Amino acid sequence: MTADEQAIREVIRQWHALTADGDVDGVLELMTEDVVFLVTGSEQPMRGRDVFAQGLRGILATHRIDSRGDVQEIAVSGDLASCWAVLDVSITPLAGGETRRRRGNVLSVYRRETDGRWRLARDANLLMAV
Amino acid sequence: MTADEQAIREVIRQWHALTADGDVDGVLELMTEDVVFLVTGSEQPMRGRDVFAQGLRGILATHRIDSRGDVQEIAVSGDLASCWAVLDVSITPLAGGETRRRRGNVLSVYRRETDGRWRLARDANLLMAV
Repeated sequence: MTADEQAIREVIRQWHALTADGDVDGVLELMTEDVVFLVTGSEQPMRGRDVFAQGLRGILATHRIDSRGDVQEIAVSGDLASCWAVLDVSITPLAGGETRRRRGNVLSVYRRETDGRWRLARDANLLMAV
Repeated sequence: MTADEQAIREVIRQWHALTADGDVDGVLELMTEDVVFLVTGSEQPMRGRDVFAQGLRGILATHRIDSRGDVQEIAVSGDLASCWAVLDVSITPLAGGETRRRRGNVLSVYRRETDGRWRLARDANLLMAV
């Protein structure tokens, strides 16, 4: 495994750990300013760190998120990388109640920025309710 | 626009033209042998040229496909590229009948292979019925 692949796997590991901790600022550090999330059910993508932050803070105000990303493969060339992972996300109301679980494939593009750090830049999320 | 970006846009243009012509062998030339398609509704990806070919030939035996990909952006580094496009696909029975139309975002990864040609390597397709 190359150092770049290890670094990207570490970004993914941190993403899930920080999300479980409710550390939104920490998660934002792992994506580019201009990040784009393509999601099922809407042609409108979620664009930019601020929009993502608003959505995540909204969920974390009333829910706990437990998630995991199982990397299927990573390809790196220069300052661009692609990653295919299987994502498993469980969202549980803090007040108690049923956990909603979603699972599925995710194709992500990472970019190495000028500070040398890899960050999530583009993401297509095919999660379905389990 | 760089020469690489132009080459990738040309692959996309050819993809749709060859599909409309029913030229499956031509379309296969535009993807890597180990291509992976991630699709909504199934955790199981479609892996490899042969599986894609079988699926496309099955559809084209009884339908005409008219499709279009509107490129939103392309990023290239070394031998890897990512492309975000909005795909619009119409499938019409050759025997006549209702056209089914699907539309949505697609995140794709292209790889420059040893012959110097860019080919589709990974694809996450978020199409929905219109």
